[in-house]
Amino acid sequence: MDPITALLHEALEGVRGLDAGAPASYIPELANADPELLSLAVVGPHGRVRVVGDVEQDFTIQSISKPFVLALALADRGRDAVLRKVGAEPSGEPFNAISLEAGTGRPANPMVNAGAIATSALIPGDGVDDRTARIVAGLSAFAGRSLWVDEQVYASESGTGDRNRALAHLLRSYGVIDGSVDIAVETYFRQCSLLVTARDLAVMGATLAFGGINPVTGDRVVAEAVARDVLSIMTSCGMYDYSGEWLLRVGLPAKSGVSGGLMAVAPSQFGVAAFSPRLDAYGNSVRGVAVIESLSERFGMHLLEPHDSVAVPAFTVDDTDSGRVLRLSGELGLAGTERVVAVLRELADAMPAGAAVTVDARELGRTHREALIALRAEFERMPRSFVLRE
Amino acid sequence: MDPITALLHEALEGVRGLDAGAPASYIPELANADPELLSLAVVGPHGRVRVVGDVEQDFTIQSISKPFVLALALADRGRDAVLRKVGAEPSGEPFNAISLEAGTGRPANPMVNAGAIATSALIPGDGVDDRTARIVAGLSAFAGRSLWVDEQVYASESGTGDRNRALAHLLRSYGVIDGSVDIAVETYFRQCSLLVTARDLAVMGATLAFGGINPVTGDRVVAEAVARDVLSIMTSCGMYDYSGEWLLRVGLPAKSGVSGGLMAVAPSQFGVAAFSPRLDAYGNSVRGVAVIESLSERFGMHLLEPHDSVAVPAFTVDDTDSGRVLRLSGELGLAGTERVVAVLRELADAMPAGAAVTVDARELGRTHREALIALRAEFERMPRSFVLRE
Amino acid sequence: MDPITALLHEALEGVRGLDAGAPASYIPELANADPELLSLAVVGPHGRVRVVGDVEQDFTIQSISKPFVLALALADRGRDAVLRKVGAEPSGEPFNAISLEAGTGRPANPMVNAGAIATSALIPGDGVDDRTARIVAGLSAFAGRSLWVDEQVYASESGTGDRNRALAHLLRSYGVIDGSVDIAVETYFRQCSLLVTARDLAVMGATLAFGGINPVTGDRVVAEAVARDVLSIMTSCGMYDYSGEWLLRVGLPAKSGVSGGLMAVAPSQFGVAAFSPRLDAYGNSVRGVAVIESLSERFGMHLLEPHDSVAVPAFTVDDTDSGRVLRLSGELGLAGTERVVAVLRELADAMPAGAAVTVDARELGRTHREALIALRAEFERMPRSFVLRE
Amino acid sequence: MDPITALLHEALEGVRGLDAGAPASYIPELANADPELLSLAVVGPHGRVRVVGDVEQDFTIQSISKPFVLALALADRGRDAVLRKVGAEPSGEPFNAISLEAGTGRPANPMVNAGAIATSALIPGDGVDDRTARIVAGLSAFAGRSLWVDEQVYASESGTGDRNRALAHLLRSYGVIDGSVDIAVETYFRQCSLLVTARDLAVMGATLAFGGINPVTGDRVVAEAVARDVLSIMTSCGMYDYSGEWLLRVGLPAKSGVSGGLMAVAPSQFGVAAFSPRLDAYGNSVRGVAVIESLSERFGMHLLEPHDSVAVPAFTVDDTDSGRVLRLSGELGLAGTERVVAVLRELADAMPAGAAVTVDARELGRTHREALIALRAEFERMPRSFVLRE
Repeated sequence: MDPITALLHEALEGVRGLDAGAPASYIPELANADPELLSLAVVGPHGRVRVVGDVEQDFTIQSISKPFVLALALADRGRDAVLRKVGAEPSGEPFNAISLEAGTGRPANPMVNAGAIATSALIPGDGVDDRTARIVAGLSAFAGRSLWVDEQVYASESGTGDRNRALAHLLRSYGVIDGSVDIAVETYFRQCSLLVTARDLAVMGATLAFGGINPVTGDRVVAEAVARDVLSIMTSCGMYDYSGEWLLRVGLPAKSGVSGGLMAVAPSQFGVAAFSPRLDAYGNSVRGVAVIESLSERFGMHLLEPHDSVAVPAFTVDDTDSGRVLRLSGELGLAGTERVVAVLRELADAMPAGAAVTVDARELGRTHREALIALRAEFERMPRSFVLRE
Repeated sequence: MDPITALLHEALEGVRGLDAGAPASYIPELANADPELLSLAVVGPHGRVRVVGDVEQDFTIQSISKPFVLALALADRGRDAVLRKVGAEPSGEPFNAISLEAGTGRPANPMVNAGAIATSALIPGDGVDDRTARIVAGLSAFAGRSLWVDEQVYASESGTGDRNRALAHLLRSYGVIDGSVDIAVETYFRQCSLLVTARDLAVMGATLAFGGINPVTGDRVVAEAVARDVLSIMTSCGMYDYSGEWLLRVGLPAKSGVSGGLMAVAPSQFGVAAFSPRLDAYGNSVRGVAVIESLSERFGMHLLEPHDSVAVPAFTVDDTDSGRVLRLSGELGLAGTERVVAVLRELADAMPAGAAVTVDARELGRTHREALIALRAEFERMPRSFVLRE
Repeated sequence: MDPITALLHEALEGVRGLDAGAPASYIPELANADPELLSLAVVGPHGRVRVVGDVEQDFTIQSISKPFVLALALADRGRDAVLRKVGAEPSGEPFNAISLEAGTGRPANPMVNAGAIATSALIPGDGVDDRTARIVAGLSAFAGRSLWVDEQVYASESGTGDRNRALAHLLRSYGVIDGSVDIAVETYFRQCSLLVTARDLAVMGATLAFGGINPVTGDRVVAEAVARDVLSIMTSCGMYDYSGEWLLRVGLPAKSGVSGGLMAVAPSQFGVAAFSPRLDAYGNSVRGVAVIESLSERFGMHLLEPHDSVAVPAFTVDDTDSGRVLRLSGELGLAGTERVVAVLRELADAMPAGAAVTVDARELGRTHREALIALRAEFERMPRSFVLRE
Repeated sequence: MDPITALLHEALEGVRGLDAGAPASYIPELANADPELLSLAVVGPHGRVRVVGDVEQDFTIQSISKPFVLALALADRGRDAVLRKVGAEPSGEPFNAISLEAGTGRPANPMVNAGAIATSALIPGDGVDDRTARIVAGLSAFAGRSLWVDEQVYASESGTGDRNRALAHLLRSYGVIDGSVDIAVETYFRQCSLLVTARDLAVMGATLAFGGINPVTGDRVVAEAVARDVLSIMTSCGMYDYSGEWLLRVGLPAKSGVSGGLMAVAPSQFGVAAFSPRLDAYGNSVRGVAVIESLSERFGMHLLEPHDSVAVPAFTVDDTDSGRVLRLSGELGLAGTERVVAVLRELADAMPAGAAVTVDARELGRTHREALIALRAEFERMPRSFVLRE
């Protein structure tokens, strides 16, 4: 077991003793889950997957499908079209609240059931099968393997889904969804019944963490802007009416599901997922919340944690025949520009007359346009012996 | 004008034409504000302040005092004590909503008026003057200069403050605030009437951006954990019932005030502030929202933007007499550990037999404990010729 | 034209000029109604019907079906069983509000849509046709003629009935309704689409006014207790969220429908109905409200109006060979007992020694048990020359 | 003990065993009440008072002051002015709800605390003492004796009255109340602290029952229209969020108070009051509700109960030298007109040619204008031998 896996193992054992809560009871199939199941998975930037606990155990994705179907809708329709049908505000209400925006009938956000049904209804397709196929294909790309529907859970959800049917009819009464209510709701029930493991969820989360590129398969699944939008909405609304306190304590965009799954994203760092069926009063996995809180704290993954540097390039200095060369790699943002200029000023002070400095920006990866404009403008104000090579 | 200031200037002019909205009318003194006033300030990691527009114009801080008084309460009482009196959830309701948590009477969060009054009441002190003095001292430390109260605006707020008095009595009826309602409310009105400029707000925001250290004065104002908590709550609740959409579009912890101020924080990068009195329906400055949205987009400051590297140290390689030395500087997080190990493996593959490698971690700045544990464990599994020096 | 009809005619002309409001727009078929239509009908204790205006015009009964289907459910299931599924409290909310009692999911009362669907679902029957047949038969008995469904309006309501379907699914999710949501909702749409005239509604109202006996046909349609329960709920909840102000101003149990019908009941006096399609913001007929308010005022029909006597019998005095006989007819309630005793005491004072008085209660109609007990007890305390004959 | 008193005694003993509920705890002074206290009083049309149980026990009037202060406000300001400040709709919410009409800030009705404070603030006067004096004088006239304030309870209410102060500040923020919040609230606390007995409440209720005339003192306290308005609002809103079910089950305008008092009104028949400190979840006296429900049922006092006759005059027939004379006494309403005409038609059929009939309406008491118009019009259509003498 590698050291990081060992740390995950230790974190998992640290929460195994928590026995508060109970599996969800309102969907009959879920109520039968073994409450002792427990697993944890982490996927890093190079796609390395680490899993501990009951790693083979699959379970239905439930509400954790919501951010990914949102991603598909954003990719397919664009942000404005999606926002015309569903808001982006935390609702201050439970996930299954029957409350829509006055006047428009828009659900508060795509993470509550009403909003998820509205989002799901934006996925194009003829009939339940066609739409489900698109959603399954999309979520499989996020997971990096073919997912499939648990037909028994689907039947159980469909058989007891009056509250969601109520929401769908209400949405149609406001024109938020068009067409058949049955198709909308059955598609939604099927999307919720996709089987996943903690590993799958961690890979899916990592795909959001790394700007829409699945770090295991290397495939771009959605555009970077889509991944960012999804993470934004997960940050404000992903943990039901515990979202604010979760952001305070854990600080990671996350989404939980009623089957006991919990997926969190440390942007540019990790996708993380836990599975444990016992739920707290908010509908979040008790042990899942605890283990991810512990990881976030130990590894400093809180989104509002300060970092030594963000959007600052790495420097290497070479003394060559044509003078000193400062090579920039990594990312150049506005703060980075300022850092580069500060370094150059130090160099200038220490340089012998006549010496030249070349700043080589050709290996920069991620570069923000305005930062580069500012950097260029700085060079125009510098002594002529300073040269910027792009 | 330096290039970045020039960019700010351009951004400001880009929003000057927006003339929707109107100054707040419910506090008589604010209704008289010149609606054309416009200023913008940015403060970076080294404390450099850049200001454009009506930079001398001061205005009352209003609700932007809320995150800073929250910081003082957190510093003074600790997070648990604060959360016993006020929640951390977005409310889905307007800033002045009369709605408290069932059973406990806790306001939803410290950014709505009820929560801010409850927070303000946690600041110790005898009477209005004593408490106000502590708050003024605290906010002055954030701003890096002595702030003072606009007595005329204070009188205007106090004279028309029945809704806030109602909230305070309600809070006392639940035991959320103890002692005199008058002292609580008048202290709150005074804190709202502190005069600031856009520059002040940008410095105050930068102090939160850099973990509680004022980058201009170099003073630590609050602990890093306090700054993180405040930013977390600003992220979920800072822009009233536009907070979710703001996070989606702009992606920065922020707080707006009814006098037209708007402060945003790009953690580890910048404090930003704008001032323009015309407000939209949510009570946020129309031009302030527009200009900060434009900055965030141009400079890639969105919190959920992916970065090339986060919590990854910088490397420099020296070949010395005692072999190759890999020097780490900057921050070491979990992702960084993985990167270091990857680099070492590459080195190992390419190394001649008998060669040695020393990893020098002594210059690391911010180091996450578990990341270091993992790094050490990795070394134990490596060939003996790899040495970690801490 | 008889004098009372002339008065009704005058009252009707008095409101003809009111042209505020518009026909309901949310059911397409209703939007096409001629807004100028206007009729008024009154039915008194002996079943005499007086109608003025567009007396031949029929229209769909809509929400005015609610009190009558409630009557059928009460008759069929009993009050307790009905109250287990639907409350009796005014909701303070619009008729189509999506709000149910916390915990139980009971709708607030049977006059809002949710409550009416729950009530309708209590009518036994297999399938839509069977249930509709029972309801049609029941409402026809109230009207004293065979009513039938307007299939075009029914189709229009069913085609746009998503909000009501949402309510029905929600009710089923709480177990308030069992069985098929479709059957419940389609039955409800059919009951709303029954065609009536103002005359029909006045007869139906009169049947409630006279304790469940249709004064035109002479048939008992429901028990007196059922009629009283229905009138109670119409009093508190019949006029949507204008019910309280209607009771204040007009003082009659009433029910309005979205097609422009308005039925009011002066208990023991009259059934009244008006028809005019223009609705106010509460969904009540503008002219209907005005004309019934005017009638109530002119004829002193307000429920809280004091009367010279209530539950006091009429007296006639005969001097016979066997002494004076006081004959009681009409109703004997508690207040009546007191009145009888007062009269007897007067007689006793004025009577020659040896004279006898017989109180003949054999022609009393409505007699309250406890009042008779009290009367008997009074006789036991009187001189022996006073005799009560029952 | 007279027979009716004996019946009351029996009714009281029938509920003595109920021991659910507890005295109100939120006002410290009330929490100390002896939970076993029990009394009942009934006042009839001639002012006869019957009391059973702990008849000497006084208690603070609390919310039962609300309808009477409303009566004073209506008398003083008129209905329109009162309705501009407070609505007449049941709120569907608890008595102390913090909810006001959107836009206007009007409380839902004068029976919830917010509405009662707004109503109390309409009583003119300089300062708390002056206003209290007017209220005490007004309520004393309703009770027929001088009432006074329990200063200890007042102090207790004032000391813990933050929720009511919150309401008052909120009302002032909307302009629903003007002037000093302190005066408004302290006056309200004093009005609630008036000491009454069950007898007092029964007399006060009887004054409303008989159109504003105190049946004990014979004084007119308020106009008939005022009494009717107050009874209307008690009917829809008097029993907190149990008002609808109370109307269904008991059918009497009523008002309960948190000290355990309960007053009900059978219009034109009785004022009734009970006292027992144990409260149910709605804040109504457990035994008070039970005993008044039992009286209403036994004596047929339900407002929606049908009566043999309402607004029908009594007839006496005399054969005089100038022909037959039909004397009308009592009340002539629309239904009465119809009855008179029916009687005349019978007489006409049976009369010998040339005979004359005089209808003598000079002894009619309460006569509705339109009914008289209709009666006159009927006479114009009759044979000339029928004469109406007014």
